[in-house]
Amino acid sequence: MYETIKTDLQAGILTLTLNRPDKMNAYTEKMNEELLHFYKEVNHDDNVRVIVVTGSGRAFCAGMDLSEGGSTFSSEQSSDEYRDLGGQVSLQVYEVNKPIIAAINGPAVGIGMTMTLPMDIRIVKKDTKIGFVFGRRGIGPEASSGWFLPRVVGIGKALEWTLTGRYIPTAEAVEAGLMQYESEDPLEKAYEIAREIAENTAATSNSFTRQLLWKMLGQEHPYASHLVESKFLHWAGQNADADEGIGSFVDKRKAEFPLKASQLPDFFE
Amino acid sequence: MYETIKTDLQAGILTLTLNRPDKMNAYTEKMNEELLHFYKEVNHDDNVRVIVVTGSGRAFCAGMDLSEGGSTFSSEQSSDEYRDLGGQVSLQVYEVNKPIIAAINGPAVGIGMTMTLPMDIRIVKKDTKIGFVFGRRGIGPEASSGWFLPRVVGIGKALEWTLTGRYIPTAEAVEAGLMQYESEDPLEKAYEIAREIAENTAATSNSFTRQLLWKMLGQEHPYASHLVESKFLHWAGQNADADEGIGSFVDKRKAEFPLKASQLPDFFE
Amino acid sequence: MYETIKTDLQAGILTLTLNRPDKMNAYTEKMNEELLHFYKEVNHDDNVRVIVVTGSGRAFCAGMDLSEGGSTFSSEQSSDEYRDLGGQVSLQVYEVNKPIIAAINGPAVGIGMTMTLPMDIRIVKKDTKIGFVFGRRGIGPEASSGWFLPRVVGIGKALEWTLTGRYIPTAEAVEAGLMQYESEDPLEKAYEIAREIAENTAATSNSFTRQLLWKMLGQEHPYASHLVESKFLHWAGQNADADEGIGSFVDKRKAEFPLKASQLPDFFE
Repeated sequence: MYETIKTDLQAGILTLTLNRPDKMNAYTEKMNEELLHFYKEVNHDDNVRVIVVTGSGRAFCAGMDLSEGGSTFSSEQSSDEYRDLGGQVSLQVYEVNKPIIAAINGPAVGIGMTMTLPMDIRIVKKDTKIGFVFGRRGIGPEASSGWFLPRVVGIGKALEWTLTGRYIPTAEAVEAGLMQYESEDPLEKAYEIAREIAENTAATSNSFTRQLLWKMLGQEHPYASHLVESKFLHWAGQNADADEGIGSFVDKRKAEFPLKASQLPDFFE
Repeated sequence: MYETIKTDLQAGILTLTLNRPDKMNAYTEKMNEELLHFYKEVNHDDNVRVIVVTGSGRAFCAGMDLSEGGSTFSSEQSSDEYRDLGGQVSLQVYEVNKPIIAAINGPAVGIGMTMTLPMDIRIVKKDTKIGFVFGRRGIGPEASSGWFLPRVVGIGKALEWTLTGRYIPTAEAVEAGLMQYESEDPLEKAYEIAREIAENTAATSNSFTRQLLWKMLGQEHPYASHLVESKFLHWAGQNADADEGIGSFVDKRKAEFPLKASQLPDFFE
Repeated sequence: MYETIKTDLQAGILTLTLNRPDKMNAYTEKMNEELLHFYKEVNHDDNVRVIVVTGSGRAFCAGMDLSEGGSTFSSEQSSDEYRDLGGQVSLQVYEVNKPIIAAINGPAVGIGMTMTLPMDIRIVKKDTKIGFVFGRRGIGPEASSGWFLPRVVGIGKALEWTLTGRYIPTAEAVEAGLMQYESEDPLEKAYEIAREIAENTAATSNSFTRQLLWKMLGQEHPYASHLVESKFLHWAGQNADADEGIGSFVDKRKAEFPLKASQLPDFFE
């Protein structure tokens, strides 16, 4: 069904693979369309508990496909109409209701890095090439990374990395919190965490938690969080997941949560 | 006066102890009421310069008291009326006008952890059990932690910890900034810092600083901070604390600040 | 032209030196005026690609000049009119359209530290004396540091440092992200980074990036970033810098970006 990406679902864990291995999975308009479609649809699929994103072949994503050279970013649209491709996808990822883990299996630069910022957990292959290189190409941060990057790594690192455009040693990326882990096998580490989530936590909890933490980043006062947490807790207190979660804990047995993510009301409207 | 907490004031340092040691200080509605009362009253007590919060016995707080099982979070209130217990206290802590140090002397999970997020400095007993375990109980982040946690540790760690619900090694918690220190004796370390604050700084300064830093987190533009800092400095420039602080520095002697926290106007109205 | 600061421009790198070496570059009203003038003018000077700020002699800046003692902060202005000196400069630095690197060559306390927070990269001399000492002088955070400091180092460290007012070991400052680097020769390290920026990146990119990252800190939703990034990319896609940046990358040669920072439209109005 897709040309530039592929998907594979196993035991609740969906692997999304960027799939242009002969082009180091460089980003194209087609890939953008397909990612938008995927992230929109996946919200409705209760069989998917966790998403793992990786790249085919030796790269994660080498950035925009520059085969059209300098005209890559020229557009026939007006300035008012034009919308950055990467940003369209980032805003869709921001709305996803399941945990997303990036397994950065090889080089990731430009949009190859910024596309992972709205994901929840990033794992990088040790000593691979990563960077926010926009300044060296005469362009600028995209994929809403102007909003996401300082929130993930702090304003200091965000400024240094984007202003110099330099490559970032993966150990430095871990220290700064850009990556949660570096690993010789990022995909296996991603599956390990995905299984930990899928096997131990409630889909309704995860769906709520992911939305809560991202969305409260933009709120002025903790009262906003108190209101939405109260609505969720009131709902949870009348439903079977909390019952099972607490019951299994008291009984010292493994929980089997009955509800599906789609049964969670939208408390963020 | 209190049943589930106790307080002890010595040389300006008030120790608040969660006091249900046979229940690992598990959180109850009664404890919530008493904490709300305490945090509201303490703002008016100029004898209290610094607050240290700890647990009685071997735990800090083992989370909600689950002795009512699955019905712990069920409520007779409507969804519009219901307000999460922990969030009520967190919002009160947010308004406290004195430094608060958490001495996490033993296991702290669920609300045992989230109740400490609006405090200023957290010290944890080395290798004790801590975690944001909500997802494993079929519930979700509470105590306004959806707002506080990403601001304390960054959005990356906040997501990983809440989505997996795993226990967090205390060394990792220090590295991520959740804890400022790990210690074999967190209470003694807390007193050390509390004394450093009480003996060297002005109560008016501390009261202003605590409110300023928390409240500016929610402001869009640094101009908001400039306005309120200007009001405070103008006031301080006419009062005896700045006079004493600068005079003692110039004279190379210890400062004895004359003002009380209650003499500070509310610049944040 | 200036009395308390001096400037020197070499190969696109402007060095701004705080220049009251016999007073450890202590801050005065005159210095404030001159800094305001400098930061306002430098935005229009396309010859300046990067700004490096340092101190003359052995100190960076020892804080406010306290030679007037307790009356340092007294003002004849009303509370409504009075504006903190340091905050005036911080707000101007926030609007600068070029990268700013602080080379903290020696002691930096009070406004000596807070003046650097709106800069982009901070490098400190190993083991020099730094701190946010306001509480020990009976005053409070200024220079809009109530807004900047928690965003640079996280709310936890910001609270601990300002509430205790203690000196901060430079290694701790690096770990917390207050400083990007500690160095035996902070000025040389600053020049190294300044050259990396000036020689490899486009002035238009840097100007946009710096404004984007700081300004998106205050936005509620990533959509705000998407909109302004889209406007910039649309503009860049029609201009010579992106052409040269991508062309030189494809050709594997060094880029020579033709545009000047002043040619960048204001996308943040």
